[in-house]
Amino acid sequence: MPTARTKKLTPPTSKRVIADLRELAKRTSNERGAQRVAWGPVWREARAWFTEKVRADLDLPVELDPAGNAWVSLKGASKDSVVFGSHLDSVPSGGWLDGVLGVVAGIEALRRHKAAGTPPVTLHLVDWADEEGARYGRSLTGSAASAGTLDAEKELAHLVDRSGVKLPDALRENGIELARMHEAHAYLKARDPKAYLELHIEQGPVLESIKKPAGVVLGTMGVLRHMVRFKGQAVHAGATPIPLRQDAFLAAAEFALACRDVGLAFSGKTPKTRVVATCGVVKVEPGFVTAVSGTTDISLDLRALDAKVLAKMQKAAEKAAKVAAKKNRCTVEWSPLLAIEPRPFDPTLLGFCADAVKEFTGSAPELPSGPLHDAAEMAGIMPTVMVFAQSSPGISHTRLEDTPIPHLDRSVKAFLRLLERTVEHVASTS
Amino acid sequence: MPTARTKKLTPPTSKRVIADLRELAKRTSNERGAQRVAWGPVWREARAWFTEKVRADLDLPVELDPAGNAWVSLKGASKDSVVFGSHLDSVPSGGWLDGVLGVVAGIEALRRHKAAGTPPVTLHLVDWADEEGARYGRSLTGSAASAGTLDAEKELAHLVDRSGVKLPDALRENGIELARMHEAHAYLKARDPKAYLELHIEQGPVLESIKKPAGVVLGTMGVLRHMVRFKGQAVHAGATPIPLRQDAFLAAAEFALACRDVGLAFSGKTPKTRVVATCGVVKVEPGFVTAVSGTTDISLDLRALDAKVLAKMQKAAEKAAKVAAKKNRCTVEWSPLLAIEPRPFDPTLLGFCADAVKEFTGSAPELPSGPLHDAAEMAGIMPTVMVFAQSSPGISHTRLEDTPIPHLDRSVKAFLRLLERTVEHVASTS
Repeated sequence: MPTARTKKLTPPTSKRVIADLRELAKRTSNERGAQRVAWGPVWREARAWFTEKVRADLDLPVELDPAGNAWVSLKGASKDSVVFGSHLDSVPSGGWLDGVLGVVAGIEALRRHKAAGTPPVTLHLVDWADEEGARYGRSLTGSAASAGTLDAEKELAHLVDRSGVKLPDALRENGIELARMHEAHAYLKARDPKAYLELHIEQGPVLESIKKPAGVVLGTMGVLRHMVRFKGQAVHAGATPIPLRQDAFLAAAEFALACRDVGLAFSGKTPKTRVVATCGVVKVEPGFVTAVSGTTDISLDLRALDAKVLAKMQKAAEKAAKVAAKKNRCTVEWSPLLAIEPRPFDPTLLGFCADAVKEFTGSAPELPSGPLHDAAEMAGIMPTVMVFAQSSPGISHTRLEDTPIPHLDRSVKAFLRLLERTVEHVASTS
Repeated sequence: MPTARTKKLTPPTSKRVIADLRELAKRTSNERGAQRVAWGPVWREARAWFTEKVRADLDLPVELDPAGNAWVSLKGASKDSVVFGSHLDSVPSGGWLDGVLGVVAGIEALRRHKAAGTPPVTLHLVDWADEEGARYGRSLTGSAASAGTLDAEKELAHLVDRSGVKLPDALRENGIELARMHEAHAYLKARDPKAYLELHIEQGPVLESIKKPAGVVLGTMGVLRHMVRFKGQAVHAGATPIPLRQDAFLAAAEFALACRDVGLAFSGKTPKTRVVATCGVVKVEPGFVTAVSGTTDISLDLRALDAKVLAKMQKAAEKAAKVAAKKNRCTVEWSPLLAIEPRPFDPTLLGFCADAVKEFTGSAPELPSGPLHDAAEMAGIMPTVMVFAQSSPGISHTRLEDTPIPHLDRSVKAFLRLLERTVEHVASTS
């Protein structure tokens, strides 16, 4: 092992990060936004840019693990390592920062550490493959394989995209064998990872609403997702007096409004304790202007950082569904779609993160992440934390998604400081 | 002109009507229900049955008018005439009585009157073409042409069915020229019609709910139909706290529930004064489980027999939409789909109808018709009334739609008496 550096790290700076982000956006976006959909040509173009950049600036190679995650490693005095990164893939017509911010800031982190000589521990920058799941519907594919939570044969082998291409064929086109994806877990473990850090755009309006450039992410919320079917009786709208109806849509409407109340009732007053409840899919049958709905399917997505709160919200929603069904003389049935445990982040890293965010923004607002991130997979196997850069406007998966440059600057600096502190910490305990 | 009959009419009977209905159902239904969709082969089969029956039992021909309506005429002492009928066409997989009841009861009426010699006025039985609009979406096609309210070039020329067949071609297949359909109006006027009568199954639960075999139809309700678009902001369900959302679906849900309240508030306590409000189409965009709805389109169908009440309901619904939009920080836009005036039926004929229904059922419950009928078109040009036979169950456009035989019997008898009385009335005033 080489001995640790003697030179000091230069102060964190965001200038090259912002220039790199602009360069990458130019190369992989069109007028509708970023087009880096995983496994496709524009995504490969983003990775080609990444490989060139890493070679040019760091003289380091990019290595693919068996799940298609791309790794850049800067050897340290110890083989113990800190892992950081995010994802270059995007949804179709997505934002210029979603995912790439964390990868491009990671390149800067490597530049900064390399310039100071051999770091005390090894640094691994990772570009996770297919975080979005935009083409095949399974998100966090690469990080889940790496965390050992992906059953590729069961979850991926049967998936087909809209144009009929099977996921195993799309993988093969990118040099990945589905049957070997699980080996990504051993690949990660062999790198003795002691911490995982990720910088990501918030993709929501919380930081903007409290006027904070960056935030400390407490963890990713747990998710309970169901389809709820209300069944009544389809009848002619003109012929059936309102009191004699069994209107499944009205039952679903009452249910959706009650679920909003559940979300509000279980939310604390601060961003830290917020929970959400959302009905995003509504399918009304028969769906004619002249027909009272006989069947309405409605989705409910509940999220909370606290597993106990999440369970209570589910109970309250089930009660609300019964009330809505009874009032409209309908029946109700629940079908589970998804259940994800909350992933609270590591207390020590949260402390480092708060210090770093406070240093560059004056305060350290804490918030949970409602959306999932690759960090949620990593949190299952090692201490993890995330920094959020403010979204403005607070919308996501659109070309309009943005972080104002002054906030971007502070977020990148806070992330670089967080990494620096984490490296010291891992070095001192390894 | 021949002189009027001397023989008395035999008492009304339903036996042959019920036998004929069963015979026709057997010939034109399958295990999913009636399949007599207008302009198609099974509908032509129904008309072939009708033609044979009329020839065999009455020795009368069936004549098509320029809109494809099928007429059977029994000459009376006067050319002044009473018109009665309904439609042989059905929705796909419809009920065995919807439409055909009025036509088949009409055959019995002709048999009964013919057996007594020459009637005092001329009797015209009509089978209206394409009442349902099941294949091309335009209902009351034949009766509207006959009433002079159809602009065939504008309303029909462009229509195409699901398999790509143009309506003008489907008409031609049945010997009808679109450009000549308007001549159906002169065809009717030339017959000096003085009254129109129709027996139809209720297609709703009102008579069943008050335990009445048959009812006196006060008229067809006016309809105001709109699409209402709520626009908010599509955002990530996990990332966006509930108080910061602009959830277009929740706005639509509040609107739909408020519209139910509008319907209840403007309904009187009796079937006679009921009104309805229905949201049957709901389209939620983007419609993902993880997305708050940015746009929701919802249909509103308002119906009332009183035009003033209908206008007030519309005002109340517009107010409710504003409130729902504001509460959810959305905008709202209205697009008109349909506006049909109420068609109250003729007071004199309503009196005859009440007497006839009371004679055979013991009472004369009055109710408006929410669904439209060919009678609504006739009401615009001559005194009109309808008898409803109870639906049990009170559902429509399904093979399950039915009238219990004892109620069917009484309804047919009441209709035959109503016609008898109307013929006397027209004879006495012509």
